[in-house]
Amino acid sequence: MREDNEPSYSLSAAANRLRRSVIRTILPLTTQPGVISFAGGLPAPELLPAKQIQAAIEKALREHGSDALQYRPQYRPLREWIADFMSKLGVECEPEQVFITNGCQQGLSIMARLLLDMGAGVIVEKVAFTGIGQMIAAPGAKPLTVETDLDTGLDVDRVEHLTSDRPRPRMVITVPNYHNPLGVSVSPEKRKRLAEIAARYRVPIVEDDPYVMLRYEGEQLPAVTALTEKGYAFYLGSFSKILAPAMRLGWIVAPPGLEDKIIVIRESFDLESSALIQRAVAEFCLSGQLEPHLERLREAYDERRVTMLDALEREFPDGARWSRPKGGMFIWVTLPEEADTWAMFDDAIKRQVGYVPGEAFAIGDRMKNTMRLNFSNASPADIKEGIKRLGKVIREHLEYRRAFLAAK
Amino acid sequence: MREDNEPSYSLSAAANRLRRSVIRTILPLTTQPGVISFAGGLPAPELLPAKQIQAAIEKALREHGSDALQYRPQYRPLREWIADFMSKLGVECEPEQVFITNGCQQGLSIMARLLLDMGAGVIVEKVAFTGIGQMIAAPGAKPLTVETDLDTGLDVDRVEHLTSDRPRPRMVITVPNYHNPLGVSVSPEKRKRLAEIAARYRVPIVEDDPYVMLRYEGEQLPAVTALTEKGYAFYLGSFSKILAPAMRLGWIVAPPGLEDKIIVIRESFDLESSALIQRAVAEFCLSGQLEPHLERLREAYDERRVTMLDALEREFPDGARWSRPKGGMFIWVTLPEEADTWAMFDDAIKRQVGYVPGEAFAIGDRMKNTMRLNFSNASPADIKEGIKRLGKVIREHLEYRRAFLAAK
Repeated sequence: MREDNEPSYSLSAAANRLRRSVIRTILPLTTQPGVISFAGGLPAPELLPAKQIQAAIEKALREHGSDALQYRPQYRPLREWIADFMSKLGVECEPEQVFITNGCQQGLSIMARLLLDMGAGVIVEKVAFTGIGQMIAAPGAKPLTVETDLDTGLDVDRVEHLTSDRPRPRMVITVPNYHNPLGVSVSPEKRKRLAEIAARYRVPIVEDDPYVMLRYEGEQLPAVTALTEKGYAFYLGSFSKILAPAMRLGWIVAPPGLEDKIIVIRESFDLESSALIQRAVAEFCLSGQLEPHLERLREAYDERRVTMLDALEREFPDGARWSRPKGGMFIWVTLPEEADTWAMFDDAIKRQVGYVPGEAFAIGDRMKNTMRLNFSNASPADIKEGIKRLGKVIREHLEYRRAFLAAK
Repeated sequence: MREDNEPSYSLSAAANRLRRSVIRTILPLTTQPGVISFAGGLPAPELLPAKQIQAAIEKALREHGSDALQYRPQYRPLREWIADFMSKLGVECEPEQVFITNGCQQGLSIMARLLLDMGAGVIVEKVAFTGIGQMIAAPGAKPLTVETDLDTGLDVDRVEHLTSDRPRPRMVITVPNYHNPLGVSVSPEKRKRLAEIAARYRVPIVEDDPYVMLRYEGEQLPAVTALTEKGYAFYLGSFSKILAPAMRLGWIVAPPGLEDKIIVIRESFDLESSALIQRAVAEFCLSGQLEPHLERLREAYDERRVTMLDALEREFPDGARWSRPKGGMFIWVTLPEEADTWAMFDDAIKRQVGYVPGEAFAIGDRMKNTMRLNFSNASPADIKEGIKRLGKVIREHLEYRRAFLAAK
């Protein structure tokens, strides 16, 4: 029976499909004092360039006056800087093809509204950033999942098989660099294959690339968009991980001819990105402050990455495997089959160490013996200590689980 | 035939339904040098509190350090300030019912994703802010339109008739104060009726209220949300018109119990609003800077409003009528039937005066003899001169149209 005061109207199908990310629910547990957290996807606080951001905002207000505070068209010098940056990834585009967003998640929302309908097929990895799952769920599209190899990236044979199907899927999503949560990058051969598949079957690629500038090892590979026939790839970039999440700024590079559609979709969501923040970020980038800042980030994060990989080797039990990311913020750990990283989570928090159970990233399948570890947001000393604690929790958990299973 | 390079994939139904607002296309014409523009919906640039905003941002960075730059939960002191502000409109709510948005347009998007499905009925005025039209079009909902009386607001008898229908509509949209573009406010009696209708038929009200703090005349009326049985009203507020559009900050007040749904919907769009801007706006409001700033705005805008109303009386031809807003930024003009404000637009621009043809705000019907005039973004001297120019353009246009119609 309905309670007296309970509203009786229906929520939308979209509202019923969307589920709150468990990451957001467990984060508060991992940020309690004393807990070493590998759970969040946060930049290191001590490396956020607060003073430079403040100076850039000041300069934007001084030089642009009320233009920095009004409703304004997208800031052209920022679009130009981004177009220029894209050429370093092999993508030739005009500033008119660059659309300022509030970050990659808004880029994904815009892609969904541009390309997806109820029931539309979307090719996506079985393990994906939660925001990608929500992007597919919101319009009621249908995930068509592929496996991911932890050395070379998504299974392109399977991508081709699914893409060649009728009705055609409406998009292929790829996260080419330092995948969240898997830490893997797509190999050069697979990038070419993706580009060929998109053009052959005329299914657009959506390339979600928020971590590209956090490269610690290996050569810069060309973007999948750079390899793809004109018109069949959309690229999503972000300043959240390299400048600060609170800038809420990113971009889409779209094929020519879609400007009106993309702008009206963006307007339907929330009109536009802050004129002030656009000018401040342009100031930061155009005055040459980004590259030295990135150098500092890369140096610090690389040390953390190596520290974590070494600690895993030392502390984690036999049978555990993990990805070896060449950039980004995350390592993906697969424990022996008996492990259940949800069941183990409370024990870990009691031992003051946090992570995200891998299942939080599952589209479809269960993956109960996996976890995501973030290495950008803890000091090297904390990483050593935290992985040591976590190794103990895992060993005990496995011992218990094995005894339990043997007794059954 | 398809051109060789033209992508052959389909866009979504939503992308095909959404049409770019003509306002955005005509605005560039009205901002040419020399043109006195009544077209935009912009705050006066000289009244934007740039220095105070800069100081608030500085203070937020100084006091909150990296917390102001990270991914962060909604800033509690800002939610508390908003909950307190809501009590002045008669709305009793907890800070947990306040959800920070990027402004009213994002509030509308969130409402659409929460409540609307393809084909769902939405009760809306025939003349509405373009963003409301987009909010309905995006999910493929169906506008059920009602007329608006320029003295008392929307036709509540018609609202009740449509609301009582089966299947029930999914929401009633109302803009209670200083309607964009009509300039009208909903009378106290009609507010009560709306509240009763919502509770009786169990259809939620969405109250879009970005102009409430720009009141120049008359008493503060209670929000429709304040009068509505708990659970049946959502309130949307914004800092865009009172602080600065580039803050990109607003809020929703929702019934209790919807927190998880609203947060996941917001996350699916673009994760969250800037932690930095939330803290800066909270600093501005909590340190008592908002009220004196609003006083300055009200004084200046009221002078402009009165100047425009006087000039209309003097310069516009017989048979023209207009709304007499008690707040906000807009006056709605209805010219004699023969007039066509689109046909006249080029002549107006040649005479260096801009406006928005009323048809830009039509949901369904044509309204070719109407226009929206903004009075907040031109000096009193420019208002006098611009309305004089526009009066001449209208007289000549009417003369020509009448001669043309007589000759037919």
